[in-house]
Amino acid sequence: MDQKLILHEYTQSGNCYKIRLTAALLGLSLERREYDIMKGETRTPEFLSNVNANGRIPVLQIGDRFLPESNAACFYLADGSKLIPSDRFDRADMLHWMFFEQYNHEPNVATLRFWLSFVGRQNLNDGQRAQIVTKHAAGEAALKLMDEHLSSRGWFVGDNLTLADVALYAYTHVAEDGGFDLKQFPNVSAWLGRVAAQPNYVPIA
Amino acid sequence: MDQKLILHEYTQSGNCYKIRLTAALLGLSLERREYDIMKGETRTPEFLSNVNANGRIPVLQIGDRFLPESNAACFYLADGSKLIPSDRFDRADMLHWMFFEQYNHEPNVATLRFWLSFVGRQNLNDGQRAQIVTKHAAGEAALKLMDEHLSSRGWFVGDNLTLADVALYAYTHVAEDGGFDLKQFPNVSAWLGRVAAQPNYVPIA
Repeated sequence: MDQKLILHEYTQSGNCYKIRLTAALLGLSLERREYDIMKGETRTPEFLSNVNANGRIPVLQIGDRFLPESNAACFYLADGSKLIPSDRFDRADMLHWMFFEQYNHEPNVATLRFWLSFVGRQNLNDGQRAQIVTKHAAGEAALKLMDEHLSSRGWFVGDNLTLADVALYAYTHVAEDGGFDLKQFPNVSAWLGRVAAQPNYVPIA
Repeated sequence: MDQKLILHEYTQSGNCYKIRLTAALLGLSLERREYDIMKGETRTPEFLSNVNANGRIPVLQIGDRFLPESNAACFYLADGSKLIPSDRFDRADMLHWMFFEQYNHEPNVATLRFWLSFVGRQNLNDGQRAQIVTKHAAGEAALKLMDEHLSSRGWFVGDNLTLADVALYAYTHVAEDGGFDLKQFPNVSAWLGRVAAQPNYVPIA
């Protein structure tokens, strides 16, 4: 990587952690800039015009260009490496799991972790409180689907760890912070152990 | 493409349309299998065990393998074509917009279209009805962000149409079905016209 890499992030965010884990597995260095999302530091006019008009972290800065969306940033870092399958079907199937992660998993498993462990149940508004039951059920359905998929295989796609595993690991391994019971998903639990045993693995914080 | 391609779909779904539009732009033939999602035809035990354990369409079948997630299916079809940039940053930036589409756009713009034009406002449950205002605001924010991005450029990434445009076009061009006013977004409206003017373009239905 010939250009400097800067990760604009909030350490505890699983979406930011995905990018650090990808970089670590690939032996790449990232400079890190921390924003306190609890204080709205990613919604300032400066952040919106210079880093991400969508007001969200993570953003991966590559030289003077900015790349939002965690899974896109992971793809950039891993492009051409063993973390992205060289087989055409497997490459698309990796993206299938990464889109599943952002659509079916993160809005439930990550949002409940944020609401229950960071914001605090007593500080939620009525609209958020009304969604807890639905999000818990949808998060459990995502974890169950993962558990069934892993009943006959070690990794989400092919025979090795790919970005699909990195993306799904990020919020699954801290799902208990959102009120999920990982003991109900033994294949997921065993897979979490395999990810954490990878050379160059780094923890979330 | 040496293997037979079968699209498991519901014609009116923008997620399914993305795949048909990608195939059309590339001159690829798709066999189509229709499921009535209003009758739960993607939640039958047969569908769940043979097509997609997640109970959703679209699924792209390639020979005897099944690929869920619309944007992953588009990536499979377009892999190696001009619809995916050859530049590393642009390729990841295309994925950035495709993840934005599934996270910030589709759950708002597409869901309101489905609720208001397919299910019908009078048939929504209380939880759905309570989310209309929030989803409308979030959908408008996504359209505004797109409009600002397009103020200085013709396409989402680089100088040509890519899968980012295809993915975002699918539900944007029918956003008025969900109660959005596209006249508020002139750059988006002009871009919709550019997409529809592409050689081999096909309409949603």
